[in-house]
Amino acid sequence: MSYNLLKGKKGIIFGALDENSIAWKTAERVHEEGGQFVLTNAPIAMRMGDIKNLGEKTGAEIIPADATKVEDLENLVDKAQEILGGKLDFVLHSIGMSVNVRKGNHYTDMNYDYTTKGWDVSAVSFHKTMQALYKKDAMIEWGSIVALSYIAAQKVFPDYNDMADNKAYLESIARSFGYFFGKEKKVRVNTISQSPTPTTAGQGVKGFGGFIAYADKMSPLGNATAQDCADYTVSLFSDLTKKVTLQNLYNDGGFSNMGVSQQVMEAFEKDQEE
Amino acid sequence: MSYNLLKGKKGIIFGALDENSIAWKTAERVHEEGGQFVLTNAPIAMRMGDIKNLGEKTGAEIIPADATKVEDLENLVDKAQEILGGKLDFVLHSIGMSVNVRKGNHYTDMNYDYTTKGWDVSAVSFHKTMQALYKKDAMIEWGSIVALSYIAAQKVFPDYNDMADNKAYLESIARSFGYFFGKEKKVRVNTISQSPTPTTAGQGVKGFGGFIAYADKMSPLGNATAQDCADYTVSLFSDLTKKVTLQNLYNDGGFSNMGVSQQVMEAFEKDQEE
Amino acid sequence: MSYNLLKGKKGIIFGALDENSIAWKTAERVHEEGGQFVLTNAPIAMRMGDIKNLGEKTGAEIIPADATKVEDLENLVDKAQEILGGKLDFVLHSIGMSVNVRKGNHYTDMNYDYTTKGWDVSAVSFHKTMQALYKKDAMIEWGSIVALSYIAAQKVFPDYNDMADNKAYLESIARSFGYFFGKEKKVRVNTISQSPTPTTAGQGVKGFGGFIAYADKMSPLGNATAQDCADYTVSLFSDLTKKVTLQNLYNDGGFSNMGVSQQVMEAFEKDQEE
Amino acid sequence: MSYNLLKGKKGIIFGALDENSIAWKTAERVHEEGGQFVLTNAPIAMRMGDIKNLGEKTGAEIIPADATKVEDLENLVDKAQEILGGKLDFVLHSIGMSVNVRKGNHYTDMNYDYTTKGWDVSAVSFHKTMQALYKKDAMIEWGSIVALSYIAAQKVFPDYNDMADNKAYLESIARSFGYFFGKEKKVRVNTISQSPTPTTAGQGVKGFGGFIAYADKMSPLGNATAQDCADYTVSLFSDLTKKVTLQNLYNDGGFSNMGVSQQVMEAFEKDQEE
Repeated sequence: MSYNLLKGKKGIIFGALDENSIAWKTAERVHEEGGQFVLTNAPIAMRMGDIKNLGEKTGAEIIPADATKVEDLENLVDKAQEILGGKLDFVLHSIGMSVNVRKGNHYTDMNYDYTTKGWDVSAVSFHKTMQALYKKDAMIEWGSIVALSYIAAQKVFPDYNDMADNKAYLESIARSFGYFFGKEKKVRVNTISQSPTPTTAGQGVKGFGGFIAYADKMSPLGNATAQDCADYTVSLFSDLTKKVTLQNLYNDGGFSNMGVSQQVMEAFEKDQEE
Repeated sequence: MSYNLLKGKKGIIFGALDENSIAWKTAERVHEEGGQFVLTNAPIAMRMGDIKNLGEKTGAEIIPADATKVEDLENLVDKAQEILGGKLDFVLHSIGMSVNVRKGNHYTDMNYDYTTKGWDVSAVSFHKTMQALYKKDAMIEWGSIVALSYIAAQKVFPDYNDMADNKAYLESIARSFGYFFGKEKKVRVNTISQSPTPTTAGQGVKGFGGFIAYADKMSPLGNATAQDCADYTVSLFSDLTKKVTLQNLYNDGGFSNMGVSQQVMEAFEKDQEE
Repeated sequence: MSYNLLKGKKGIIFGALDENSIAWKTAERVHEEGGQFVLTNAPIAMRMGDIKNLGEKTGAEIIPADATKVEDLENLVDKAQEILGGKLDFVLHSIGMSVNVRKGNHYTDMNYDYTTKGWDVSAVSFHKTMQALYKKDAMIEWGSIVALSYIAAQKVFPDYNDMADNKAYLESIARSFGYFFGKEKKVRVNTISQSPTPTTAGQGVKGFGGFIAYADKMSPLGNATAQDCADYTVSLFSDLTKKVTLQNLYNDGGFSNMGVSQQVMEAFEKDQEE
Repeated sequence: MSYNLLKGKKGIIFGALDENSIAWKTAERVHEEGGQFVLTNAPIAMRMGDIKNLGEKTGAEIIPADATKVEDLENLVDKAQEILGGKLDFVLHSIGMSVNVRKGNHYTDMNYDYTTKGWDVSAVSFHKTMQALYKKDAMIEWGSIVALSYIAAQKVFPDYNDMADNKAYLESIARSFGYFFGKEKKVRVNTISQSPTPTTAGQGVKGFGGFIAYADKMSPLGNATAQDCADYTVSLFSDLTKKVTLQNLYNDGGFSNMGVSQQVMEAFEKDQEE
C-alpha cells in the first residue's frame, strides 16, 4: 500500500536494529510512502549486515552516531542534510535501554551509575538530538519529530524498572522542546506511546511475553504491532497532522483507557476460584 | 479517634442509606470530629428506621429531599441553615443510581428514558444542590463541597454501564461550578474517586464481588474502605486543605496509577498456562 | 491535494451546516480522498440551499435526521447503507448545542430543561448514533467513528457553560461504547479535541472572538483551523490509524499542554503594569 | 492551631533553607501537630544560623546530608532512627535546583553536565532517599512519604527550563517506588504539586514575580502559600489519608484545572485592544 504521503520529504530515522524493530518497519513504510532518509544507530548497537540490507532496500545511507554524544549528533545533522540535499521534514527517535534492567537490578536496588547511563541513552539523547537540529536550523517549517514512548511513563508496570522514569522524562522533553520548536520553527514534536512490542530490545524485560499477552487481552483492538506503529508514524510525518504537537499519542488498541476488560476479569476470576 | 478537626463546622450529608454507606461512615466520623449536620436522602430511598438511628447517634435531624427536585433542595438548604443556626461549612454528595444497570440493560442496548433518569439522579443532582447553595449564599467562606466519584469516569470498566458517563459528567460539574464557587464565594469543590466499595447500592452492579477482589490485588495498599473514605472526607472538610479545589482525588490504595500489579499478572499468567 | 487515502470507503457525516462548519470541510476533504458518504443534519438546523450545494459538490445524498430521535437514526443507518451499497467505514459526529448558552443563562443559574435538551443533542446523540450502528451491525471491521470535542471537557473555560459537561459526557461515551465496538466489531471510536474554531455555531458563545485570539497566542503552532481538523479526521478514517481507539486526540497547535506561553505572559504583564 | 494529628509520629524533613521555605513552614506545622523529626539539608545549602533557629524552635536535631550521596543518606536514615528512637512515620523531600537555570542557559542551549547535576539533585535524590529508607526498613507501616513537585511536569512553562523534566522524573519515581513501598511495607508515596511559591530558591527563575501574579489570577482560590502547603502536608502525614498513594496532588487554588479565568481573559483582551 502506498499513498505517496511523504513524497519529497526527507528525514532521519534512529534505532533500526533488525527487522523486528519499530524503526525498521517505519523506515520501510516511509520509503513506500516516498520519503527519503538516512539511517542511524549507535556504533555499538549496529548490526552492520542487517542495517546495510535495510539501507539498500530503502535507498538510505547509514551514518553511525552515539546519540549521547553531542558531536556525533551534530555531525549526523550536517551529513544528513548534505546527503538529502536540504533541510529535514521528519525525525524518528526510537532509542531506549536500561542498564539496570540488563544487569537484573531491582528498582529498589539500583546502581545509580547505570541509572544515569540509561537516562542519558533513553531520554537525554532526545534533547541532544533536538538541540542539534534546532541550533543548526535543520528542520523545515511544519516538519515533524516523533519519539517512541511507553505507558509506563504514566502508570506502574513493576518490571519496567527505571525505563518508566526515563520515558516520563522523554515525554517531558517532547513538551518542553516542542514549545520552542513550535513557536520558533513551526515544527511539531510528539511521542507515540506504543503497545508492548516483541522487538529484540524489548525481550530483555523480565516476563515480557506474559505481559504482551496481558496487554493484548486488555485492549479492545488487541496490541498494536510494529507495523501498526509504522503506519501511525507515517500519519504523524504527513501533512494531515500539521497542528498536532506536544502530544503523547497512544497507539495501543485502547489499552491506555481500559480499567479492566472482560477477558482479563475472567482470567482473574477463574484463577481466584481455584 | 478524634482530633476536633471539624469543631464548630456545620453541613449537610446526602446519601446515608444504611451502615454500609460511605455517607453513613462519614456522618459518624464528622460527628466524632465535632461537626454538626443534617442528614438527607430521597424519600423513596430512605430506610427510616436505619437513618433515624444514625440521626440519634450523631445528633442530626433528617430532612427528606429528592435531589432531582430544585424545590426540595431549596427547602433543604433553608431548613439546614435554620436548624444549624447559620451558613454551612461542608456538604457531602453521595448519590448515584443507574436505572439501566438495575433493569439489566446492556450499555449497547440502553433505554434512554432510564439513561436520563440515572443522569439526573447521579450527576445533575450535584449541580442542582450547588445551584441551590449558591443562589441562597448558604456556604461560609472556605467551606468545602465533596461529591463521590469513581475511576470509570476516566477508564473503561465494562459492567459499570452508564454510571461511567454519569461520573464523568459529575466530575465536570465539580470543575465548572467549582470555578464560580471558588471565585465568588471562596468555597472548595472536589470529588473523591473511591475504590469499589461493598455498599448496599454498589451490590447491584454485575460481577461486583469479583471486581472488588481484582481492584484489591491491583492496588499496592489494597482497596480503600468506606471508613477510609470517611477519614479522607474529614481531611477535605477540614482547614488543612483550604486551597485544594477543582480536583478529582483518588482514595484507592494506588489503583488509579497502576498499569498492572505483580499479583494480577500472576493470576493472569496462571490462567493462561492452563 | 489528494492521496486516495479513503478510496472505496463509505460513511456518514453529521453536522455540516455551512461552509464554516468543520463537518463541511471534512466532507470536502473526505471526497477529495476518494471517500463516499451521505450527509445528515437535523431538519430544523439544515439550511437546505447550502447543504444541497455541498451534496452536489461531493456527490452525497442528504438524509435529514434528528440525532436525538432513535427512529430517525435507525432510518439514517438503513438508508445510508442502501445508498452507499454496504456497510460503513466511517462516521463523523459533529453536533453540539447548549440551550442555556443560547438563552444567556449563567452556569450558576441554569434552567434544567434546557440542560437536558443540550445534553441530549450534544452528547446522548452520539450514544444513540452508535447504538443504531451497533444494533444494525452497520460498521465494517476496522471502521472508524469520530466525534468532535473540546478541551472544556478537562479544564474550566467559564463561558463554555454546560457544553463543558456535555463534552465530558461525550468523551466518556466514546470510551465506554468504544470498548464494545472494538471488542465485538473491531471498530475504532475516538474524539478530536479541536482548537476553538470560528464556526457559525461557535459564534453564539460569549466572548468567543477574544478567546480565539487567546488560544492562538497560547498555542505554539497557533490554533488548528476547520481545514486542519478535516485533514486530521481523514487520517483517523484512514488505515494508518487502525489501532488508535478510546482516545481523545488534541488537534490544537499544542494548547492542551501549555501552562503559559511567552506571548500570553507578556500580554498579562503589560496589563498589570498599567 | 493544633489538632495533635501527628502526636507520636517521627520523621525527616529535607530542604528547610530559611523561613520562606515550604519545608520550614512544614517543620513548624508538624511540630505544632505533635510530630518529631530531624532536619536535613545539603552542607553546601545550609544556612547554619537559620536552620539552627528552626531546630531549637521545633526540638529537632540537624543532620547535614548531600541528597545526591547514597552514603550521606544512609547515615541520615540511621541517625534519624537513633535520635528519634525507632522507625519513621513521615519524610518530606523538598529539594530542587537547576544549574542551567542558575547559569542562565536557555532550554534549547543546555549544558548537559549541568542538566545531569540538576537531575541528580532534584529528582534522583528522591529515589536515593527512598532506596536508603527501603533497604534499611526504616519506615513504619502506614507511614507517608511526600515530595514537592510543580505542574511544569505536565504543562509547558517556558521559563521553568529543565526543572520541568526533573519534576516529571520525580513524579514518576513517586509512582514507581510507591508501588514497591506500598506492596512490601504499606507505606504511602505521593507528590504535592504546589502553586508557584515565593521561596528564596524559586526567586532564581526568570520572570518569577510576574508569573506568580498570573497563577494567582488564574486560580479561583488564588495561589496556595507555603503555609497552605504545610497544612496540606500535615494531612498527608496524618492517619486521615492512609489509602492515598501514587498520587500527584495539586495544592494550587484550582490552577491545574483552569483553561482560562475571567481575570486573565480580561487582562489579555485589554492588552489586545491597545
